[in-house]
Amino acid sequence: MDASDIAKPHDRLAAWLAEDMDAVNSLIQTRMASRHAPRIPEVTRHLVDAGGKRLRPMLTLAAAHMCGYTGPYHIHLAATVEFIHTATLLHDDVVDESAQRRGRPTANLLWDNKSSVLVGDYLFSRSFQLMTETGNMDVLRILSDASATIAEGEVLQMTAAQDLATDEDVYLQVVRGKTAALFSAATEVGGVIAGADKAVVRALFDYGDALGIAFQIVDDLLDYQGQSAATGKNVGDDFRERKLTLPVIKAVAKADAEERAFWSRTIEKGHQEEGDLDHALSLLHKHDTLEATRLDAIAWADKAKQALAAAPAHALRDMLIDLADYVVERIN
Amino acid sequence: MDASDIAKPHDRLAAWLAEDMDAVNSLIQTRMASRHAPRIPEVTRHLVDAGGKRLRPMLTLAAAHMCGYTGPYHIHLAATVEFIHTATLLHDDVVDESAQRRGRPTANLLWDNKSSVLVGDYLFSRSFQLMTETGNMDVLRILSDASATIAEGEVLQMTAAQDLATDEDVYLQVVRGKTAALFSAATEVGGVIAGADKAVVRALFDYGDALGIAFQIVDDLLDYQGQSAATGKNVGDDFRERKLTLPVIKAVAKADAEERAFWSRTIEKGHQEEGDLDHALSLLHKHDTLEATRLDAIAWADKAKQALAAAPAHALRDMLIDLADYVVERIN
Repeated sequence: MDASDIAKPHDRLAAWLAEDMDAVNSLIQTRMASRHAPRIPEVTRHLVDAGGKRLRPMLTLAAAHMCGYTGPYHIHLAATVEFIHTATLLHDDVVDESAQRRGRPTANLLWDNKSSVLVGDYLFSRSFQLMTETGNMDVLRILSDASATIAEGEVLQMTAAQDLATDEDVYLQVVRGKTAALFSAATEVGGVIAGADKAVVRALFDYGDALGIAFQIVDDLLDYQGQSAATGKNVGDDFRERKLTLPVIKAVAKADAEERAFWSRTIEKGHQEEGDLDHALSLLHKHDTLEATRLDAIAWADKAKQALAAAPAHALRDMLIDLADYVVERIN
Repeated sequence: MDASDIAKPHDRLAAWLAEDMDAVNSLIQTRMASRHAPRIPEVTRHLVDAGGKRLRPMLTLAAAHMCGYTGPYHIHLAATVEFIHTATLLHDDVVDESAQRRGRPTANLLWDNKSSVLVGDYLFSRSFQLMTETGNMDVLRILSDASATIAEGEVLQMTAAQDLATDEDVYLQVVRGKTAALFSAATEVGGVIAGADKAVVRALFDYGDALGIAFQIVDDLLDYQGQSAATGKNVGDDFRERKLTLPVIKAVAKADAEERAFWSRTIEKGHQEEGDLDHALSLLHKHDTLEATRLDAIAWADKAKQALAAAPAHALRDMLIDLADYVVERIN
């Protein structure tokens, strides 16, 4: 059996794209440098070195190759996408007052909130420089629209997170903003830079959108049933931080008056007591919302796979299909 | 005597550009709306309604008209410039922990730091959408470069502000970042969108650059000699906030050992006592650095005026020349 048959799809993508990813990493290193302000590379290096899986830039590279692209600009676009992602993480940590990210202290803890805000702004502006260098107006439109969707989703999350009126539609908008908008832009621009036809570009967008939504739903589900070691989070973090995610939204929709009062006290008002997390979990189990959430994630992963039917046959297409399965494998 | 002969140049610009500015304001209103997140227009309206002088968008409009532009996109570019400016103010207030801006409580005080960070991000991304709509690659390059210079200047200011090694070169880099980069981009894109030739575009850039530097030096000078009522600031705010601005940088350069120890204690270490501001002022007077700073501001204003010699003869050109005089009038 070939090693590639058993490796995780993410690792197979990384192997196939290794040369490109070297070029992306090198471009990231160059562009996050600052002649004048050494604090900038200090902060970004901390975050970029911490790694993450570089999933988003790989999506761009894979989409471009699938569509037969032979030019140089998929590298710029992949770096753009990673810069936007990194900038978002820096600002998220300020907004969430996080102390840890990827198992390391966050930049706002190591330096200060000021550094995180300003270096995030620097990376945003660097990302716009990078995409401008491609000279492709469609790509600029897609990525500037995605940036606006991301920012709007973040604001929406801030205002909707603790409001029991938040329904599954609003949740989906938030998820598109915080996660799926960059996934779908990442895959879409790969097709656009390659000059793929409309149906293929649409398929790439749909794949990224559905994959991003599945990815985020899995994350929100694991918060209530994962193991700390596997996820890097503690069970119930979202509950403690009063975040209305899909399992709770589904439970609120089925709540009787007494249960509604519980959610109102713990999430809306934030008055949490010993034993509340256990009670919350019992309500999720009572209404079977963890299973319903799991089925939603799987449905989105299926949607992602189906979208790729319209994309050109390619070894990378198969890996992207496997990737959609892999995203929901953690909850199967 | 015609009223336009006696009005301030800023008001004459506003009168000449009134119709365009209505279009800019209306575009700003439309684009700062958010279907999903009502917090966004709440925060931006607070800041945009507070007014400010809309100087930057007027620079873009004036430059475009001077160069004979007849298309629609100078309105987009003017709104872009104001959005970038507003986003920067929102993030600055978080970084500076400011409580007041334009005589009103800052957004971070009325709402919270999260709102200021995220709504600022939203405005940044909206500004990129607006400039992308022009379909002009040169404009995109100029504005994305300016954004990077602004962000880099902000980081540099944060790290250099309390470091006595900061010299006039570093000060100039910071000033270009925090003020002049957006002024020069504002004037430059007005010429570029109008298809002006290289020499004129260069002249417009130089004008905006020099005007922005003069503007900031005047601001920093007034901090040590202005009246609170006129500037909305208290004398010595920069000293209390330990900001190394030009009057102090010039004094540090001429300091004997004892004076250096004073600056090191009060600015670098931030150990300030009763009477320190008076002593600081006496050192500025001793080395005559307020006068030297005043002369620098006037020299930059002159440079701005000279640059416009290469621009087409136009009523707006004369107003921009007068504007440069007006900027330094407050210190004459």
